[in-house]
Amino acid sequence: MSKPARTPDPPYYAVIFTSTRTDVVEGYGETADRMVELASQQPGFLGVESARDANGLGITVSYWESEEAIAEWKKHGEHRLAQGHGWGRWYQEFFTRVAKVERANHFERE
Amino acid sequence: MSKPARTPDPPYYAVIFTSTRTDVVEGYGETADRMVELASQQPGFLGVESARDANGLGITVSYWESEEAIAEWKKHGEHRLAQGHGWGRWYQEFFTRVAKVERANHFERE
Repeated sequence: MSKPARTPDPPYYAVIFTSTRTDVVEGYGETADRMVELASQQPGFLGVESARDANGLGITVSYWESEEAIAEWKKHGEHRLAQGHGWGRWYQEFFTRVAKVERANHFERE
Repeated sequence: MSKPARTPDPPYYAVIFTSTRTDVVEGYGETADRMVELASQQPGFLGVESARDANGLGITVSYWESEEAIAEWKKHGEHRLAQGHGWGRWYQEFFTRVAKVERANHFERE
């Protein structure tokens, strides 16, 4: 996830997850990694980008073929949450925004 | 920009800018700060979130009331670029994606 995701031409969907963390570290890294692993195995998954700044703000954007694919992932995700990973403990605040990508430009240096 | 942006209820628009940098630092920080300052003065600007990870990936998401507001900002932005800030030198790669935010959830710890 250290490079921009290689998404196809629009339209497709983005889930923008922006957060600040609590001080609770127990279980966070493993669960975050596992979530990305699970997401990438879901039908309709197109890619993910994630960055956490030194100032504490984290942004993860996942890309999906359709709203249906997001709904399926959400069901899966919530299933995982139900298993007691304690998601809520890790976050001070978050926004989840679902958006339809209408156009995109890509630049890459030779 | 160390917290999630306080956006209103959807619908609104997001510009997701994902990048990796070159080694060129000259002028970058000042110009990036200035771009945020200018954006925040534009009509229709709703907020911005930005994070650059230790692994090098940067994600900046700006939020806008309408496509027209984005188009006006783009014109303004390109005008700045035309003044020789050398934008292209700073990036190894980037994606710019314009997306319509259709729904959002917010959580904040008491």
